[in-house]
Amino acid sequence: MAHPELDPDVLDARLAAAKEASRRLATATTAEKDAALAHVSRLLRERTDEIVAANLRDLDAGRASGLADGLLDRLTLDERRIAALADAVLEVVALDDPVGQTVSGRTLPSGVRIDQLRVPLGVVGAIYEARPNVTVDIASLALKSGNAVVLRGGTAAEQTNDVLRAVLRAAFEAAGLPGDAVQTVDDYGRAGARHLMQARDYVDVLIPRGSAALIRAVVDEAKVPVIETGAGVVHMFLDESAREDWAVELVHNAKVQRPSVCNALETLLVHRAAAERLLPAVLDRLEASGVTVHGDERVRAIRPDIAPVTDEDFATEHMSLDLSVGIVDSLDDALAHIRRFSTKHTESIVTNDLSNAERFLNEVDSAAVMVNASTRFTDGGEFGFGAEVGISTQKLHARGPMGLPELTSTKWIVRGAGHVRA
Amino acid sequence: MAHPELDPDVLDARLAAAKEASRRLATATTAEKDAALAHVSRLLRERTDEIVAANLRDLDAGRASGLADGLLDRLTLDERRIAALADAVLEVVALDDPVGQTVSGRTLPSGVRIDQLRVPLGVVGAIYEARPNVTVDIASLALKSGNAVVLRGGTAAEQTNDVLRAVLRAAFEAAGLPGDAVQTVDDYGRAGARHLMQARDYVDVLIPRGSAALIRAVVDEAKVPVIETGAGVVHMFLDESAREDWAVELVHNAKVQRPSVCNALETLLVHRAAAERLLPAVLDRLEASGVTVHGDERVRAIRPDIAPVTDEDFATEHMSLDLSVGIVDSLDDALAHIRRFSTKHTESIVTNDLSNAERFLNEVDSAAVMVNASTRFTDGGEFGFGAEVGISTQKLHARGPMGLPELTSTKWIVRGAGHVRA
Repeated sequence: MAHPELDPDVLDARLAAAKEASRRLATATTAEKDAALAHVSRLLRERTDEIVAANLRDLDAGRASGLADGLLDRLTLDERRIAALADAVLEVVALDDPVGQTVSGRTLPSGVRIDQLRVPLGVVGAIYEARPNVTVDIASLALKSGNAVVLRGGTAAEQTNDVLRAVLRAAFEAAGLPGDAVQTVDDYGRAGARHLMQARDYVDVLIPRGSAALIRAVVDEAKVPVIETGAGVVHMFLDESAREDWAVELVHNAKVQRPSVCNALETLLVHRAAAERLLPAVLDRLEASGVTVHGDERVRAIRPDIAPVTDEDFATEHMSLDLSVGIVDSLDDALAHIRRFSTKHTESIVTNDLSNAERFLNEVDSAAVMVNASTRFTDGGEFGFGAEVGISTQKLHARGPMGLPELTSTKWIVRGAGHVRA
Repeated sequence: MAHPELDPDVLDARLAAAKEASRRLATATTAEKDAALAHVSRLLRERTDEIVAANLRDLDAGRASGLADGLLDRLTLDERRIAALADAVLEVVALDDPVGQTVSGRTLPSGVRIDQLRVPLGVVGAIYEARPNVTVDIASLALKSGNAVVLRGGTAAEQTNDVLRAVLRAAFEAAGLPGDAVQTVDDYGRAGARHLMQARDYVDVLIPRGSAALIRAVVDEAKVPVIETGAGVVHMFLDESAREDWAVELVHNAKVQRPSVCNALETLLVHRAAAERLLPAVLDRLEASGVTVHGDERVRAIRPDIAPVTDEDFATEHMSLDLSVGIVDSLDDALAHIRRFSTKHTESIVTNDLSNAERFLNEVDSAAVMVNASTRFTDGGEFGFGAEVGISTQKLHARGPMGLPELTSTKWIVRGAGHVRA
């Protein structure tokens, strides 16, 4: 779809409207926000036919432009998926409202009272591609945490997102909240996305969701602060003392249970002294599940029929049933490999050696570091957050699975009775 | 001082050395870090003559290049100030080490144990100007929280900072910690600063300290995440019901007690219905302390002898005994003025009206919002943090006075016994 030339005034007016709406949302009660979410859920069901029709137009255009099957699948919103989306919105109603929670507080020696309260961030910019479910998902989580959103959902999903945005705005307004809390820049294509990324006066945070390339592009171009999410070149290290049954099941679960997600295993490292003992069973179990193993020279000495692995493989989040496997001489070598290739998402060691476990936990610099557990546990749902905004792979503001509190900031409330500083 | 042409390889080698050193600091014990800080304090005293001599050279160069008196004062490190700096380092020893603190933790239904622990950020880039005390201050706070630092202390203080950096490195090494944890980019001037701001592979966060112009420049140029600190166009609003004695003392304290700091008052807004009752006493008290008042038309109708105020005044952090004063028709008008001109640092309302107090606290979007208290209370020391890294005026990661915990991130530690995800 061709996009008109960017009109910065038009976009600024939308961003200003989002900012204005965010002020109303900041003082909206939990009851108001929950009522709006219930409306969203109901309207998604009522307008399912309209959403599906728009989605079919996007899918036709996607096929015509040669989108890959995986992308077409992610782009698809059929009746069943819309019903699931409507259910997911109701789950957000059940989450605790973080706004107004007291983070800390005390009475100063002078008698001045200070309280640190959670407040919304304000306006959240979401940048993603060909995933129309994210439109509803992020707008619902943002609303519950009192934030307005500006959406960049990508050209491939533009018609679907137009309808979803209309549904969201109508539902907000039916609940007495401003529809302007949901805005888009998609009608200006990439130029609109760039405008959003520069709009420090209006937008408080950008959350890119998608491929490593998308996230890198946002980080490179953005002036608005970014929370990096998701890219996961995830490692597991089988130490010399790893139990064979655990090694087999942990590697299999981490790789196979859901290979297309960010906490799935991409690289298996095996201690030299354990390779002959562990690798045959580990690889048999993987290959029985259709995993394509790419191995280094020493792996291929044990199992000559597998493909060679390259440094590019080690640096890639395949999100498929491909697994890179290498043999290392020591824990130190495993740590060095992880330092070189990890995206700082999740790494796990399988070991019975206490010192090595503690060293791994202390020295690996990732959002989640595990011992004898599947990397698939790095997940907001598994961690008990109820919903997940994304998994932050950066160190500022949020690290690891992000729940609703990560969509808030804090504010100090100071109450005196004519108190001056001495 | 002229700077050689930037050699990116030389700088990258230093940044890589800082990163490597940060790995050692991340696992340093509190005892090791405190011993290094004690060495820093002792060496500052022992090498006072050398520091003073370097500082005199910077001061001579500053005078020759026409630096303003205020800047020359900030640049000065005499024996007394060095002793105070050495004392301040010992105060950091007394602070709690945030590293390793458990932020949250639970056992998941499956039996997997998850713990969220505080970990250092890694490498902190500090960007400031003509304040050599900040060199010691930020390096000490960074060390206590397990971080390496890369310093951009500005050309005006370059010779002083060279000696201070040598002191810091020697003290770290005397305690068995890597001197490489303290690096500089100052020898390449502005090009070095730009290199630092782009170095996402090595630097985890940038903290600019100084003028609004400096902070804006860093935000505009940086690819590394920034924590904005300090700029304070701080407002106080005297509501219709404000007590006269509180109004007089709160305005005076906020403006006069220390006018050169970021939490000092810059703009006073007065409710129309209270102006004739309150302004004469408020202004008398200010003028008796040498404050230069700039007033709008309605203020000058009450006090014709004062200077007129401009929008530029309202937008300026004077950091001097200048105060902008305006009369507004309502709380809403005060809130609108604050939205337009505030830097989101601190705002205070003086009122006895409960509804207005609550509206002000809820609706003003600043790091600290106060009722009947002096804006001077927004301070890490006053808040009980023991030391202050700066005052964040942004919403991500940290907001308001930053203590040592704000120089940390978190990491999820996950412990299983062969647990796979179902």
